[in-house]
Amino acid sequence: MKMWDGRFNKPSDRLMEAFHNSLPFDKTLLDEDIAGSAAWSRALKSAGILSAGELAKIEKGLRRIAEAGGKNALAFLPADEDIHMAVERLLTDKIGTAGAKLHTGRSRNDQVATDVRLYVKKSLSAIIESIALLQKALLARAEKECDIIIPAYTHLQQAQPVLLAHYWLSFLFALERDKDRIAHARSTADQCPLGAGAVAGTGFAIDRGELAKDLGFSGPMPNSIDAVASRDYLLEALSAIASIGITLSRYAEDLIVWSSKEFGIIELDDAWSSGSSMMPQKKNPDSLELIRGKCGRFIGNYTRLAVTVKGVGLAYFKDLQEDKEPLFDSVTNIRITLAVFRRIIATLAVHRTAAAALLDPLLLATDLADYLVVKGVPFRQAHKAVGRIVAYCAENKCAISKVPVALLQSFHPLFGRDAVKVFSWERALAHREVLGGTGRKSVARQIAQAKRILRKGPR
Amino acid sequence: MKMWDGRFNKPSDRLMEAFHNSLPFDKTLLDEDIAGSAAWSRALKSAGILSAGELAKIEKGLRRIAEAGGKNALAFLPADEDIHMAVERLLTDKIGTAGAKLHTGRSRNDQVATDVRLYVKKSLSAIIESIALLQKALLARAEKECDIIIPAYTHLQQAQPVLLAHYWLSFLFALERDKDRIAHARSTADQCPLGAGAVAGTGFAIDRGELAKDLGFSGPMPNSIDAVASRDYLLEALSAIASIGITLSRYAEDLIVWSSKEFGIIELDDAWSSGSSMMPQKKNPDSLELIRGKCGRFIGNYTRLAVTVKGVGLAYFKDLQEDKEPLFDSVTNIRITLAVFRRIIATLAVHRTAAAALLDPLLLATDLADYLVVKGVPFRQAHKAVGRIVAYCAENKCAISKVPVALLQSFHPLFGRDAVKVFSWERALAHREVLGGTGRKSVARQIAQAKRILRKGPR
Amino acid sequence: MKMWDGRFNKPSDRLMEAFHNSLPFDKTLLDEDIAGSAAWSRALKSAGILSAGELAKIEKGLRRIAEAGGKNALAFLPADEDIHMAVERLLTDKIGTAGAKLHTGRSRNDQVATDVRLYVKKSLSAIIESIALLQKALLARAEKECDIIIPAYTHLQQAQPVLLAHYWLSFLFALERDKDRIAHARSTADQCPLGAGAVAGTGFAIDRGELAKDLGFSGPMPNSIDAVASRDYLLEALSAIASIGITLSRYAEDLIVWSSKEFGIIELDDAWSSGSSMMPQKKNPDSLELIRGKCGRFIGNYTRLAVTVKGVGLAYFKDLQEDKEPLFDSVTNIRITLAVFRRIIATLAVHRTAAAALLDPLLLATDLADYLVVKGVPFRQAHKAVGRIVAYCAENKCAISKVPVALLQSFHPLFGRDAVKVFSWERALAHREVLGGTGRKSVARQIAQAKRILRKGPR
Amino acid sequence: MKMWDGRFNKPSDRLMEAFHNSLPFDKTLLDEDIAGSAAWSRALKSAGILSAGELAKIEKGLRRIAEAGGKNALAFLPADEDIHMAVERLLTDKIGTAGAKLHTGRSRNDQVATDVRLYVKKSLSAIIESIALLQKALLARAEKECDIIIPAYTHLQQAQPVLLAHYWLSFLFALERDKDRIAHARSTADQCPLGAGAVAGTGFAIDRGELAKDLGFSGPMPNSIDAVASRDYLLEALSAIASIGITLSRYAEDLIVWSSKEFGIIELDDAWSSGSSMMPQKKNPDSLELIRGKCGRFIGNYTRLAVTVKGVGLAYFKDLQEDKEPLFDSVTNIRITLAVFRRIIATLAVHRTAAAALLDPLLLATDLADYLVVKGVPFRQAHKAVGRIVAYCAENKCAISKVPVALLQSFHPLFGRDAVKVFSWERALAHREVLGGTGRKSVARQIAQAKRILRKGPR
Repeated sequence: MKMWDGRFNKPSDRLMEAFHNSLPFDKTLLDEDIAGSAAWSRALKSAGILSAGELAKIEKGLRRIAEAGGKNALAFLPADEDIHMAVERLLTDKIGTAGAKLHTGRSRNDQVATDVRLYVKKSLSAIIESIALLQKALLARAEKECDIIIPAYTHLQQAQPVLLAHYWLSFLFALERDKDRIAHARSTADQCPLGAGAVAGTGFAIDRGELAKDLGFSGPMPNSIDAVASRDYLLEALSAIASIGITLSRYAEDLIVWSSKEFGIIELDDAWSSGSSMMPQKKNPDSLELIRGKCGRFIGNYTRLAVTVKGVGLAYFKDLQEDKEPLFDSVTNIRITLAVFRRIIATLAVHRTAAAALLDPLLLATDLADYLVVKGVPFRQAHKAVGRIVAYCAENKCAISKVPVALLQSFHPLFGRDAVKVFSWERALAHREVLGGTGRKSVARQIAQAKRILRKGPR
Repeated sequence: MKMWDGRFNKPSDRLMEAFHNSLPFDKTLLDEDIAGSAAWSRALKSAGILSAGELAKIEKGLRRIAEAGGKNALAFLPADEDIHMAVERLLTDKIGTAGAKLHTGRSRNDQVATDVRLYVKKSLSAIIESIALLQKALLARAEKECDIIIPAYTHLQQAQPVLLAHYWLSFLFALERDKDRIAHARSTADQCPLGAGAVAGTGFAIDRGELAKDLGFSGPMPNSIDAVASRDYLLEALSAIASIGITLSRYAEDLIVWSSKEFGIIELDDAWSSGSSMMPQKKNPDSLELIRGKCGRFIGNYTRLAVTVKGVGLAYFKDLQEDKEPLFDSVTNIRITLAVFRRIIATLAVHRTAAAALLDPLLLATDLADYLVVKGVPFRQAHKAVGRIVAYCAENKCAISKVPVALLQSFHPLFGRDAVKVFSWERALAHREVLGGTGRKSVARQIAQAKRILRKGPR
Repeated sequence: MKMWDGRFNKPSDRLMEAFHNSLPFDKTLLDEDIAGSAAWSRALKSAGILSAGELAKIEKGLRRIAEAGGKNALAFLPADEDIHMAVERLLTDKIGTAGAKLHTGRSRNDQVATDVRLYVKKSLSAIIESIALLQKALLARAEKECDIIIPAYTHLQQAQPVLLAHYWLSFLFALERDKDRIAHARSTADQCPLGAGAVAGTGFAIDRGELAKDLGFSGPMPNSIDAVASRDYLLEALSAIASIGITLSRYAEDLIVWSSKEFGIIELDDAWSSGSSMMPQKKNPDSLELIRGKCGRFIGNYTRLAVTVKGVGLAYFKDLQEDKEPLFDSVTNIRITLAVFRRIIATLAVHRTAAAALLDPLLLATDLADYLVVKGVPFRQAHKAVGRIVAYCAENKCAISKVPVALLQSFHPLFGRDAVKVFSWERALAHREVLGGTGRKSVARQIAQAKRILRKGPR
Repeated sequence: MKMWDGRFNKPSDRLMEAFHNSLPFDKTLLDEDIAGSAAWSRALKSAGILSAGELAKIEKGLRRIAEAGGKNALAFLPADEDIHMAVERLLTDKIGTAGAKLHTGRSRNDQVATDVRLYVKKSLSAIIESIALLQKALLARAEKECDIIIPAYTHLQQAQPVLLAHYWLSFLFALERDKDRIAHARSTADQCPLGAGAVAGTGFAIDRGELAKDLGFSGPMPNSIDAVASRDYLLEALSAIASIGITLSRYAEDLIVWSSKEFGIIELDDAWSSGSSMMPQKKNPDSLELIRGKCGRFIGNYTRLAVTVKGVGLAYFKDLQEDKEPLFDSVTNIRITLAVFRRIIATLAVHRTAAAALLDPLLLATDLADYLVVKGVPFRQAHKAVGRIVAYCAENKCAISKVPVALLQSFHPLFGRDAVKVFSWERALAHREVLGGTGRKSVARQIAQAKRILRKGPR
């Protein structure tokens, strides 16, 4: 027995029922479905379709279903093809006729769209909170690690010395853009489709403005066809989540490399590492690897939904039932991933001595070229001269910081006795007090800016 | 001869040069590179690195390169590995020493990031304009076609009658969200990385706030590592473009179906159709099909860049050179696609008679159920009763609008003589004056709302 | 308590345990894990590591675990981080010391790779069977519907008349390539990694040739690093599955269009259709839409895994734990999708009269041009002449088959009185007896060929 | 003037012409188009449509066009919408009437499908050659570097010692599967669609078996609808190419890490490295990074085409014109990428001393556990005991190879004086002579096997 089978002569095939049934995953939407149905009932009452008594019965019935749901005590039937039909059926079983009136003027098309938008708003808010917590962990490390100098890498080759704090802050600021994208995706989702009916607008005099307000939306969607057809807000949410995933994957990649014995800059806490089933010595940064690996899922979920939505015309096709699994999967996994990364950051150990041992004076080759620039040498010539010194050092296996002035002068006559002063980590930092640079004061200003951002809180 | 080859003993392999060379595509950035270099020169002047005379030479030299570029008259060399090195080399060839000072305190890392962000800002603004033009074409049709009733489809089965204007408006409102996403992507791109240097911040006292302002950015990026590493703004742009592509593909799909002889609702202008090399009778909606097909490219370009960016740590890897081709491709193709769709919309013919002939009274089955609801019948019972009437009509091959009242009453006793009044397209519309519904007044209100949106103009 | 925690001072964090635990999904591999462990025990026995008694105990213990697993009666613990550790732990709980010897010389790296390859081989064989069943359903329809002529469409515009049987056969032959790709993916998976150990090869004298044979593999993988690192066979399987999904989606798209009232060629059985929660008249081809929609998942699963595998170096990273969910999901869903499509094909109704009504004489315009060709007119001229006749008919709203000879001659003098004979569906078929064409004999030959293919059975 | 415009009243819009025109990219198919047309002419001659004289004219005309094409001297017109129409137009311009007969019984649908299949066959053969050359470079290194021991890594943590030769061989064997997939994709493409006409089969008595043979195909496609609709062979080719890309990216990732100062195992030749525009000391493994980065393109091209093909029904839609650019892009880029990787491998330097310095005795922890196993200790207990020794060493900062026997015995009583013998790289290798293991003899056997594979040559 289906809710819609009046015109059918035959029941669904069993295999069709299994294929078609979305209850195993869309029951996630129970709370949203109940909230949507309660608001719809109030709207029907305002429109004169339901009496006060019927409304009261429905609201009470829905509350009971929500309670049972909270206790995982709902008895679903095979014919309950989705959570929406299940709630209506359970309600009608409980309260009779009034329940059978709930779906008046409503279609699953606008109902599902409403439920999913409520879920998206809630979930994206939670993700914003999770990002902010990770940012706070990064801020704490940045404040703590303002005195550790590490090599910054480009192409995984030592580039220039930076404060470790500067690195943590780069992560924090990158996440700020991710947070902002999630907030925008939330605002896109924040329009109410309910009252759009199947496609043409409900046939009853519903006040959609009031209804939207009742459900906490910023307003109603302006066109009923678009209201039931739109899935772009899901794609926006999934791509914003994928962007977080990519940010996390890139930093995880760095930290995995830094965890190697060869780099040795950091070490994960035992609680966030794993061993090997075979090799007793192994301590692997598994948590970071999983974070990196999960990024495939976030990009894949976006692709998956994009392919499906791209493939259908207007207004609604059953293809779109496939929108929920990638959404739930991305939301669930990004939240745990963010939480894990926060804990990893909060608990990892920095091996200061190992980090210091990595610092090669070649990191200051740019500063040596800049030294010449200050003496008036065009940068390209300065770059070339220092490049030749580097080649000389490589060939002769000597440290660039130990090259005698006379030899330096053979590469460029403007090198003076003070050239050797370039080989100071502190001097290098002091030359990078530019806004956003790795100078100590600049990093302090970044910390202050980060605090302001985090204090302001998620939008 | 490379700009950076001081420390190298051997030149690049020829194959390496070809593999590595990005000039064939990144010359697209010529104008942005020149603007960036001119602003950088002014900043170097303010920082005391360049004299007023040197600055004047550089600015003049860059202007000449820009002019030559505008005439496609730049002579590139094989050793010009990218547009950035090419411009610096051309400049130095022209003006000598001053040119060799241009790159002081700058790295390609921050330079390229700046150029690309300038390009993204410009391109997304152009896309916003293109969307607005398509919306205007849709508005014009909506105003013109307020009196044509067509079947709205769900599952490609006739669902309910709607005004064709209502349909065009659904497209317009969907595009509004696409436009808003592009605007957000533009604001994400609107931060200036210049002055970040290779990774640690430039070694000179550059006023990055002034520099950002000079280039028309809202402000400087707050952290130098993040400034050179960030590619999230590209992914946001590419996913926002993909979303437009998906919107266009879905409407193209509808219009292709409507162009079939069997539907026959619309017909593309000859100027936007093609014939067959073999079958003389063919008139194919090729332009719509290409629009639909191009969507694969937009999703693919996003995936392509996401895979590449996901695969690298911080701060910069050469992998990221692969970011430009998908960007340019998506920008170029979405712009032409939007322009083509606008012209298709503006020129297509609507076959009113054919559209009218499609309207099946079954489109009003919901209204018949609603009729019972108004009489107090719970919707579920009304739905079932009407469903059975539909089954009866299918079996007996009769029109639902022609079923005698007595027979209707055999399905539900509350059917009255006035039930037949339900079978009026005008009545159905009149029952959908809900906000966003397809009622004539509702559609007029939507048109007014659309005008307000379009008058306000892109953000 | 973990199997590998000797060197750890702290237990895993609870959140880490949840994040890291793959048991909820990799328990799917229970049978494969037990088969692999049993074979490994036999190999250890041959290598003198296990005694006959120990082997017997292990084999018996494993059998019991398999039985309990079959009854869903295994008691897993939170510390059982995956099915492999769970089986080893359960075994050791049951049989003591001998169980603790099972993992000798083995690593989860080669163990998991072996289990997954066994699973892939089994699953791909099942998919081959499912494809063959769908092909048989198509063959049955082709044999039954050799006398129904429908318009073949290109660009969704009527192109040329074809036998419906010809269309079903096109589906059958397309699936044959899909089947062949799955068979190839199966052969790629058919190499045994067991004995590769963690990465360098097991430290014991295992006969890997015998071991591979024991497990039904064609042979051992030739290099231990590659054996544990390889995931290409999964990507091959996932892309082969995606290809099936795309084939099914394309045919589903056609059948959805053909199910519309406007085309009306076919109608799905009630058992494979659904109704609307709001609109009582609706009968939607939901099963076909879901098939089409599920294709997003198949492509997405491929992308998802490709992104993850692409992102890691050698030999093993925990990222690769993410390989199983997309695999299981694609396997499960393609199997049900194929089964559903088979049932849809077997039960759908063809509306012969409606199909016949669609046939427009313009479908024979090519034949009219070919008529001129036979008279010696170059095809391009013939095409143009007939094109003008088509334009004339469109303008004058007349059927091309009714244009008088005299008028035809005004378009080209070589039209004779016999030109009208072109307008015969039978004649058009008869002119397409070319191999693979839609002529009746050609279709009969295709049916015979299809029977041979299916008789031969899956490779 | 279009070839198909008989029925059109208006010319194409200029923008439509630009949007629609595929000549800028499909001119890549010139040779294939000419080969296809020549074969088709011969078939038309056999079918009595063309005279011997006409055929001779056509063949000569086509040869001239091919020659002009080879010199880049073809004069295309704006109305030449694709290479196929351009060739027919050029031919007709040259030879008149006979040229206008060329397209008799043929459609662009089967023509394009034929050209692309010819291109795919040719390109995949070239890719197979390129893979074989890379494999040979790896074999050469493997033969040369049989005496260098490096740490094998899992999770980027030192795992077990292996011969560098063993590592190169892992790459070689992985590529063998890639080669095999390309060969299968080639065999899928190896069926001839020509003669399928627009969709229903050509209207003339063409011997498609002969025609297929003339063009070097294994046979004709068995069904005309499938012949023009099929794009699965392209997706198979693109996914096989993506798999190569993933293999290359994973090994590139390893080699980039190994090129870091911190690992220092290898160093790229100057000819395959690049410097920095700002930092004079930099020598970056850019070529490897680009190889890694290009993988995004290969996966993206697959996704792109999959999305487009998935979105269309049968038989042909203009969407499918979008199939060529991703194909050409993937083919071109994988070929150069393979060639570059080969040269990188052939020219890189291995730093033996640095590699040796990395070897940590902890790499032999498994061997220490295996030592206990041989003494009868169940592996799990041995693993735990050794794990505790590792923890002890970490805490006390001592080398595991220096732990006195007495202390070892405190962790497990079965440790004897010979336990220390475990700490020998040679012994570790000698214990891994299992098939596929890193033992010296095993590696020699692998080299012999690799030679056999490469001698056999591509299929």
